[in-house]
Amino acid sequence: MKIVLDAMGGDFGPEPNVEAAIQAAKDFNIEIALVGKQELIRPLLAKANTAGLMLPVVHASEVVEMDEHPSAAVRAKKDNSMSVGMRLIKDGAADAFVTMGNTGAGMAAALFTLGRIKGVNRPAISAAIPHLKGHTFMIDIGANTEVKPENLVQFALMGSIYVERVLRVRNPKVALLSNGEEDSKGTETVQAANALLHKAPLNFIGNVQGYDILKGTADVVVADGFTGNIAIKLMEGMMPLMEDLLKKAFYSSAKMKLAGALAKDDLKSVIKSSLNYEAIGGAPLLGVDGVVIIGHGRSKAPAIYSAIQRAKEAVENGVVDAIEKGLEALPSA
Amino acid sequence: MKIVLDAMGGDFGPEPNVEAAIQAAKDFNIEIALVGKQELIRPLLAKANTAGLMLPVVHASEVVEMDEHPSAAVRAKKDNSMSVGMRLIKDGAADAFVTMGNTGAGMAAALFTLGRIKGVNRPAISAAIPHLKGHTFMIDIGANTEVKPENLVQFALMGSIYVERVLRVRNPKVALLSNGEEDSKGTETVQAANALLHKAPLNFIGNVQGYDILKGTADVVVADGFTGNIAIKLMEGMMPLMEDLLKKAFYSSAKMKLAGALAKDDLKSVIKSSLNYEAIGGAPLLGVDGVVIIGHGRSKAPAIYSAIQRAKEAVENGVVDAIEKGLEALPSA
Repeated sequence: MKIVLDAMGGDFGPEPNVEAAIQAAKDFNIEIALVGKQELIRPLLAKANTAGLMLPVVHASEVVEMDEHPSAAVRAKKDNSMSVGMRLIKDGAADAFVTMGNTGAGMAAALFTLGRIKGVNRPAISAAIPHLKGHTFMIDIGANTEVKPENLVQFALMGSIYVERVLRVRNPKVALLSNGEEDSKGTETVQAANALLHKAPLNFIGNVQGYDILKGTADVVVADGFTGNIAIKLMEGMMPLMEDLLKKAFYSSAKMKLAGALAKDDLKSVIKSSLNYEAIGGAPLLGVDGVVIIGHGRSKAPAIYSAIQRAKEAVENGVVDAIEKGLEALPSA
Repeated sequence: MKIVLDAMGGDFGPEPNVEAAIQAAKDFNIEIALVGKQELIRPLLAKANTAGLMLPVVHASEVVEMDEHPSAAVRAKKDNSMSVGMRLIKDGAADAFVTMGNTGAGMAAALFTLGRIKGVNRPAISAAIPHLKGHTFMIDIGANTEVKPENLVQFALMGSIYVERVLRVRNPKVALLSNGEEDSKGTETVQAANALLHKAPLNFIGNVQGYDILKGTADVVVADGFTGNIAIKLMEGMMPLMEDLLKKAFYSSAKMKLAGALAKDDLKSVIKSSLNYEAIGGAPLLGVDGVVIIGHGRSKAPAIYSAIQRAKEAVENGVVDAIEKGLEALPSA
């Protein structure tokens, strides 16, 4: 297996990417191609012990920055690391692409280079939201601002396949995000999707509400990209709020200062490990014709390593083929 | 001034409602009519010291329960406490209506009985979300699943007027909830509303994202009722998650158990006072032709008391008239 890692992706440049690639190449005994500016990547490899590891460097002279307009940047910078990396997948020279870069650009590059899986109308972006008992896999979280009912049904199917095959949840519970549990709740689009999902070969448990994402009521929560994006960014705001709140509480009295001194570090680590919305390994672009995993820009080596691991599992478990076959079995609108 | 309180509203029956009414009648020196089953209300009043207070009882033989279908229940139960109470406003016999009952039923009763303010196309439900520096006022949080751009503009205007006149924020910052800050982000409806809002006589700061609700970036955040409802329910899920997380952390070691014993109560009270999404006093139905404040079903006497106070301030500060006049100054779509 050969996985391509965007060495330029993320807020911290090539260093954590190279570090994660070395560790993953060693642990998984696979080839990891590092794509990006070779003058930055090679010195980092040279400093490390990479004897016997398969870590080729693929030069790409340009980088899509985090704040650039996704599709415009991908079009303008023909030799950007994402497009160069994905071309390897397209040409059959590699099996999966992993990046911590600009999510929108990842989607744009994937659409231009890999195209869609046969039958998929709209690929989607996903995220695995941690809660106290596991993860809620959300799809779409931003690619499709406006959707049709059939798009939501396809998101549900793609999410269910990924969660079953990569996150290893048996017969995952799939739900539609709405403003009430009854089938009659939601926009017209959501109501129509609800009816289609009841007929689909999925473990569809109906509608769930906002709080259900945090409770883990369903394994897969389906939304349009507008609503999903607002929800995920609201959850991103929870961690800093919680930290501010704890800070406030632990300054409120001498007794609380003492308690804070005792508890601070453990508390931080429990919260971080339970609810770190920023450093979850990575989540797939689903519906593009190839395995593409995108992680958070703030990822450090351990998160990048786990993103590579997910890419490997998605390849091994035939997620792309399963989606193509699964779509054929869906009821039409 | 005469405020009508739905004595039957909320999860705890007439008791906290009567308690709050007595306190408010005393403190504000106003008349508070208690509407509901008189055989339940009168004994509670008889037990208390109400000498000199204006606390008439208005009998209503029926109650809309929390789990009933809002408009169906309001139609079927002609003598329900909400409709009876609002008829007093309609007839000019009272100035405002306050309930801790079924929000949807409150909206249905208000639409049937009071109708809309002249010029308002779609009334909306609001909520004041606490954050560490104040409140974010959200509108709509559930009344209008599908909206047009002009509806969002009206929500913005109504929210701004309420926040300025009742929550006493000068020149409130108004924002549109979207999946990105740029004016080009969002659904077609949101994009069109953004353009209209830039021309409206409001302190419109543009689009905000999910996390901005928790940061207090804007004083008024405008959304369609579908998105707003999902956002508010997601935030409702934060408190229990946070409690579970703290419980987990404070059981993780002997040292943490000691810290927990020291900190538990203060921590709980800081979190509750900072982030209690369930016991905020109450928020208005905006756009109906009268002051109607609806509080959370789990409200106890202090929250009901503050809902009455908000109703009083909305009347004193002419919120309904201000909305009617404000609408005339809006640019048309």
